[in-house]
Amino acid sequence: MNKIEHIGIAVKNLEEAKKTFGTLLKSSCYKEEEVESESVITSFFKTGESKIELLAATSPDSPIAKFIEKRGEGIHHIAFDVDDIKGEIKRLKKEGFDLIHEQPKKGADNKHIAFLHPRAGHGVLIELCQEMS
Amino acid sequence: MNKIEHIGIAVKNLEEAKKTFGTLLKSSCYKEEEVESESVITSFFKTGESKIELLAATSPDSPIAKFIEKRGEGIHHIAFDVDDIKGEIKRLKKEGFDLIHEQPKKGADNKHIAFLHPRAGHGVLIELCQEMS
Repeated sequence: MNKIEHIGIAVKNLEEAKKTFGTLLKSSCYKEEEVESESVITSFFKTGESKIELLAATSPDSPIAKFIEKRGEGIHHIAFDVDDIKGEIKRLKKEGFDLIHEQPKKGADNKHIAFLHPRAGHGVLIELCQEMS
Repeated sequence: MNKIEHIGIAVKNLEEAKKTFGTLLKSSCYKEEEVESESVITSFFKTGESKIELLAATSPDSPIAKFIEKRGEGIHHIAFDVDDIKGEIKRLKKEGFDLIHEQPKKGADNKHIAFLHPRAGHGVLIELCQEMS
């Protein structure tokens, strides 16, 4: 794990949240991307070497809509940057971590991603991500 | 806001959580500190320029014990590093952010800290922290 790549925050109203985090971080959203497979729009802000990723649902069936329904707005996941996602999946599986994805899949922001199960991370949903070359 | 200084994670069993995050991050806890005023023990791990701070309650009255009782283990707060905490408190108050602390207080890890109210951060409990000189 090289660094915190981003923190994903589930929000109801993307425009309001962009205003809040823009003011907080004194910066602007530098990228917005829809991930159709997850029914989500993502907005990115830079902070140091990491990013804040705001996540808003585009449909009531979106995992983000369900998360907010259950727990309210707030932090959804932490993503760690890795050099070799397949190697890390293999290592963590061997160490007994419970994985949601045993194969990397395409995520937002030009990344290969895989999630660990929150029960593997003391309630924290952890994402591994590797920049696609 | 210079960077994500740390992510605070509320855990039930500190020893188990240290093992989990040590394996995940391939590193060891480099510092442990009790904050008596908050009835909490904190364990720190480095990841890039940021830290993971595990938080375990030392009494049932601890804010961390109450958090876990209500929401389960998981991410408790995000802390951002700032150069001038008093200036940031003033700026954010003027921008309409709801603050828990309007004056910085002494936190763990040799920091002056102040928390914003989670309703100011779309459900995210945000800490500002400045290294004490």
